Amino acid sequence: MEYVANTSGWRQSIENFIGHTKVQHTLVVLIVVNALILGLETSQNIMAVAGYELHLIDQIILWIFIGELALLMTARGFRFFKDPWCVFDLIVIGIALIPATGSLSVLRALRVLRVLRLVNKIDSMRKVVIGLLHSLPSLSSVFGLIMVIFYVFAVIATNMFGSKFPDLFGDLGTTMFTLFQVMTLESWSEGVARPVMEIFPHAWLFFVIFIFIATFVIINLFIAVIVDSLNSSKQAGQPKPEDLVLVELRILRDELAELRHQVASRR
Amino acid sequence: MEYVANTSGWRQSIENFIGHTKVQHTLVVLIVVNALILGLETSQNIMAVAGYELHLIDQIILWIFIGELALLMTARGFRFFKDPWCVFDLIVIGIALIPATGSLSVLRALRVLRVLRLVNKIDSMRKVVIGLLHSLPSLSSVFGLIMVIFYVFAVIATNMFGSKFPDLFGDLGTTMFTLFQVMTLESWSEGVARPVMEIFPHAWLFFVIFIFIATFVIINLFIAVIVDSLNSSKQAGQPKPEDLVLVELRILRDELAELRHQVASRR
Amino acid sequence: MEYVANTSGWRQSIENFIGHTKVQHTLVVLIVVNALILGLETSQNIMAVAGYELHLIDQIILWIFIGELALLMTARGFRFFKDPWCVFDLIVIGIALIPATGSLSVLRALRVLRVLRLVNKIDSMRKVVIGLLHSLPSLSSVFGLIMVIFYVFAVIATNMFGSKFPDLFGDLGTTMFTLFQVMTLESWSEGVARPVMEIFPHAWLFFVIFIFIATFVIINLFIAVIVDSLNSSKQAGQPKPEDLVLVELRILRDELAELRHQVASRR
Amino acid sequence: MEYVANTSGWRQSIENFIGHTKVQHTLVVLIVVNALILGLETSQNIMAVAGYELHLIDQIILWIFIGELALLMTARGFRFFKDPWCVFDLIVIGIALIPATGSLSVLRALRVLRVLRLVNKIDSMRKVVIGLLHSLPSLSSVFGLIMVIFYVFAVIATNMFGSKFPDLFGDLGTTMFTLFQVMTLESWSEGVARPVMEIFPHAWLFFVIFIFIATFVIINLFIAVIVDSLNSSKQAGQPKPEDLVLVELRILRDELAELRHQVASRR
Repeated sequence: MEYVANTSGWRQSIENFIGHTKVQHTLVVLIVVNALILGLETSQNIMAVAGYELHLIDQIILWIFIGELALLMTARGFRFFKDPWCVFDLIVIGIALIPATGSLSVLRALRVLRVLRLVNKIDSMRKVVIGLLHSLPSLSSVFGLIMVIFYVFAVIATNMFGSKFPDLFGDLGTTMFTLFQVMTLESWSEGVARPVMEIFPHAWLFFVIFIFIATFVIINLFIAVIVDSLNSSKQAGQPKPEDLVLVELRILRDELAELRHQVASRR
Repeated sequence: MEYVANTSGWRQSIENFIGHTKVQHTLVVLIVVNALILGLETSQNIMAVAGYELHLIDQIILWIFIGELALLMTARGFRFFKDPWCVFDLIVIGIALIPATGSLSVLRALRVLRVLRLVNKIDSMRKVVIGLLHSLPSLSSVFGLIMVIFYVFAVIATNMFGSKFPDLFGDLGTTMFTLFQVMTLESWSEGVARPVMEIFPHAWLFFVIFIFIATFVIINLFIAVIVDSLNSSKQAGQPKPEDLVLVELRILRDELAELRHQVASRR
Repeated sequence: MEYVANTSGWRQSIENFIGHTKVQHTLVVLIVVNALILGLETSQNIMAVAGYELHLIDQIILWIFIGELALLMTARGFRFFKDPWCVFDLIVIGIALIPATGSLSVLRALRVLRVLRLVNKIDSMRKVVIGLLHSLPSLSSVFGLIMVIFYVFAVIATNMFGSKFPDLFGDLGTTMFTLFQVMTLESWSEGVARPVMEIFPHAWLFFVIFIFIATFVIINLFIAVIVDSLNSSKQAGQPKPEDLVLVELRILRDELAELRHQVASRR
Repeated sequence: MEYVANTSGWRQSIENFIGHTKVQHTLVVLIVVNALILGLETSQNIMAVAGYELHLIDQIILWIFIGELALLMTARGFRFFKDPWCVFDLIVIGIALIPATGSLSVLRALRVLRVLRLVNKIDSMRKVVIGLLHSLPSLSSVFGLIMVIFYVFAVIATNMFGSKFPDLFGDLGTTMFTLFQVMTLESWSEGVARPVMEIFPHAWLFFVIFIFIATFVIINLFIAVIVDSLNSSKQAGQPKPEDLVLVELRILRDELAELRHQVASRR
């Protein structure tokens, strides 16, 4: 028993230390400094002048972050992996430790993802992100529908236009990218539909139908989010006024019953 | 009587069999497999290697679908044609049976429409589609208005710019496609308005007015859908709190009347 | 007195005749036929074959419309000019009577505006248009704001970029068209901002600020319309439930007062 | 005491004079005239004909504005600087007094900012602007989030594509401009993504993810403003009906208590 208490004692101390406002503020500052350094490192001129120093500070900050995570992991044990924010931290810090050579050189560029830890450290931003993520599940069926529609139109377009327009509709992946472009309405006519219509004069029907369906579904996706937000913003308020009224009414009813009892007993 | 019972007996058995969760799940899996095969068939490399096998599986799945529909048709008789989802299934399966040669070769590409049956099989998606379709009738007058505006502007543009810009405004159909492009704001200035303005310097007025009217009407279409969704999301809730309050109030009123009667009778 | 009654007698008869469902339906059909003819007249092939016949029918329908308006004007007198729909009818019919030669040849193209009379004849469409027009006044101050912002940015851009980019920012009118294009986000970067930034490297600031302000104001315009629609859709409902509750409460209060009176009088 | 009264006497007189409807109307007219003159000055033809006269009127109006501000400053003293509208006026008038030569020549173009004073002078416009500015703070965390996301994607893109596409992703500033362009969906595919994908075939992933995240966050920003407006438009109404009901209910409860007291005392 004492052992456990002891254990939870130093675990709690670590939690307290890391959770301390000053430590958290320092970490926020370090993340911002790290972000600036990673930004400066994109400039070859600055790298030529102060590349070594920037890299050194970057490494120091990285090791402080590793230390923070290591402390949290020892303090929390397996609970650490249940918190999605912690897992996210672990991944974005882990990226920096993989040697970024050869085919993994893209990971060098992804080191900057650790700046996203800022979102977790700043309350108001974390709330926004949580809000965004919470609205995702209710959108899953609309997303699924868009995926099905996308797939169907992509197969049709690849079959019909693929042989003549390999750059736009060569294979299923290329077609999906092109349809995504059409869905965002970017150069859908000048860059995609008009060239296709020169060989397939009736292709306008395909594009107009696709744009109608895609935008209509997306508008409804949009509206679903609005309705969702409005409803949740209502519920997450003070007690509903109707409830207050009903409570008040029931008190009245009880008093009235009491009164009738009084009158009856006096008879 | 017994004959009818007998008939409705085997009819019900077929319904039960097809409606069975396991059968429905199998059909969903088959639709997804079919979708993947139709996707793979767009690649000439894969077709060169495994074209025969893919085509064979495609045919087997197609015949399973035909069997499903045939069973449902025998079970339901004419009722089958009253369910729009069934009619839709019949059409998309029927497309695969028409020999896709010559001028009908486009039907080959449309075979993938049978993937849309997935929407009917998955509850959450069907609800979304029903919701989308239900919002259409209330939009019909706005759609009608957009059509009238489109037609009027198309006739004006064809008359005014048609002779000089046959590619953009050559005939009524071409003009409508161009105006649809302008309405989506895609290259409306660089690709359409600026070239036209080089010959007709006052054409900006036409395009600015068209964009104003078109976007204003569409924004209102959009808003109509939002207001509609918000209102219907309110109505489709639990009993309204106001109704609860009114019920409670009427009980109070009755009790009070009873009490007055008691007091009066004691006089 | 008898004379007036006599007058209002035949006036009413004319109103009744024109307002008769069959007459109105015939007029709707004529407008649609007229719309189709004006559409067919855009095709030179069709005009070569049946130009004379189409023109003849167009003229006949035009004279029927003129007859309708003349009857309405005699029936209503000055009241005719108080109804904006009638004035609109008069203008779009009047356009067809002006000889469309020389610099007025653009009026030929505007003859199709008479198709817009359809909006007035069909109830559901008229309601939509009235709704759209009603939302305009509440937007006037936001429109005014957009105009002021537009003017300020146009003067700045003409002063700064005009001499180097006469095609985009040559004079105030040209600049306003370009800024309108930027506001619709059409080729704002590839077609406008990037070329300008090659000579004025800091021009990005101008465009980013303009896009931010313009889209932010327009989004708010949009939202103002939504809020407006939602509020008006609430008010235009059945009696408010709160009012029902309040009426019920006042009845209860009166009954209670009566009861207290009864009890007191018995003392 | 008398001295202070005296002081506040002439101060009040100045305030009254400037606040007088006629003076304010004159100032509005002068701002509009000034706006027109600054617009006319953008035309070299007009400047060649009437440049001197326009410049003269511009100078006269400028000095009237300076006089207005000087009067207000003497009347209000330090309070003048507490009103953000006054500070704004001071800045836009001050711009006109700085000699616009050499590197400051851009200030000449900014003289037109003084037209924005119109917003302060016209009530309905000022309300709109105040409304817009009030909605900004509640958006700060979403803006912060967009900034962080922008920065992270900009660093990644500069690292990955910078060396091959210096025009689009050369340094952090250039990349941010390009990403802003992508966010507005302007030529994101034809102008940015497709060229990049020719060298980095997997770059589509970067752009699709960026567009998804950016539009999703912005849509939520948009929705936050809508929800905000709807809620504030509700609160800024008459007394809430629920409050009326609750007041009424409490009166009933008191009367009932009184009645019970009456009945009890009669026993």
